[in-house]
Amino acid sequence: MLKREYEGQNCSIASTLELIGERWTLLILRDVFLRVRRFEDFQRSLGIARNVLSARLQRLCDEGILERRVYQERPLRYEYRLTEKGIDLWPILMMMIKWGDKYAADNGPPILIEHKNCGGLLDDHLMCDRCGQPLGARDVVARHGPGQAAAAA
Amino acid sequence: MLKREYEGQNCSIASTLELIGERWTLLILRDVFLRVRRFEDFQRSLGIARNVLSARLQRLCDEGILERRVYQERPLRYEYRLTEKGIDLWPILMMMIKWGDKYAADNGPPILIEHKNCGGLLDDHLMCDRCGQPLGARDVVARHGPGQAAAAA
Repeated sequence: MLKREYEGQNCSIASTLELIGERWTLLILRDVFLRVRRFEDFQRSLGIARNVLSARLQRLCDEGILERRVYQERPLRYEYRLTEKGIDLWPILMMMIKWGDKYAADNGPPILIEHKNCGGLLDDHLMCDRCGQPLGARDVVARHGPGQAAAAA
Repeated sequence: MLKREYEGQNCSIASTLELIGERWTLLILRDVFLRVRRFEDFQRSLGIARNVLSARLQRLCDEGILERRVYQERPLRYEYRLTEKGIDLWPILMMMIKWGDKYAADNGPPILIEHKNCGGLLDDHLMCDRCGQPLGARDVVARHGPGQAAAAA
């Protein structure tokens, strides 16, 4: 058992941060939601030290947020998938996107979260701004937004 | 300008984490939403080193998330209040509460987020589960939940 980061805090925010509050962990989870699944691809996407990445992935598996699946036998290779517990982190990431888009995206949102069925966008209550349907992780797709194009230009 | 934590990440989640991802920062913000406003009260609530608390509060003021207001002239004393930019972090904290309540609150939620007007509870789309009204930070009040009583027992 690791030492708790926020000893003495009887609080669901603290409990959540115990599991996902380490540096890089939320960006790893972001990548998994964007369908990054393999060690080398996380490494390329994040540019972090392999030992840090390895430790974070291990922790997320230990906590039941990610699970490993074999995708190649020889040599043995794993990919990482979200469990239900992991998928349930989606609203936290979406609210971070919303806030970052509003206060820290000078060129507009780098990505747009689009309702698969109708092309509407995710609103501040995690509903579709066009058809009004309540949305979850499986109902949306991420598209390049204006901030992405600006960064590439 | 501080070194960026997540260099090379053109992403609103990374941008958000640059500003609120440091250890303790989200628990300081939680406290402000619970109407903690003074240095000594943060210190009591969080039990962290004064230099860390001081650095975090300074950073949040620098970023325009908190603002200082004088509440006493001699000696000069400040309290900390959320700006609009700070209040807009509320959905992130609420989604962390939701997840922590579901996965890390063995005795039930430590606090309940209640709609002031009707006594309903905040649902997963930040709406009232009784009257259906979309809720924001100013529409709710935090009450002790079953997990709080269990911890005190």
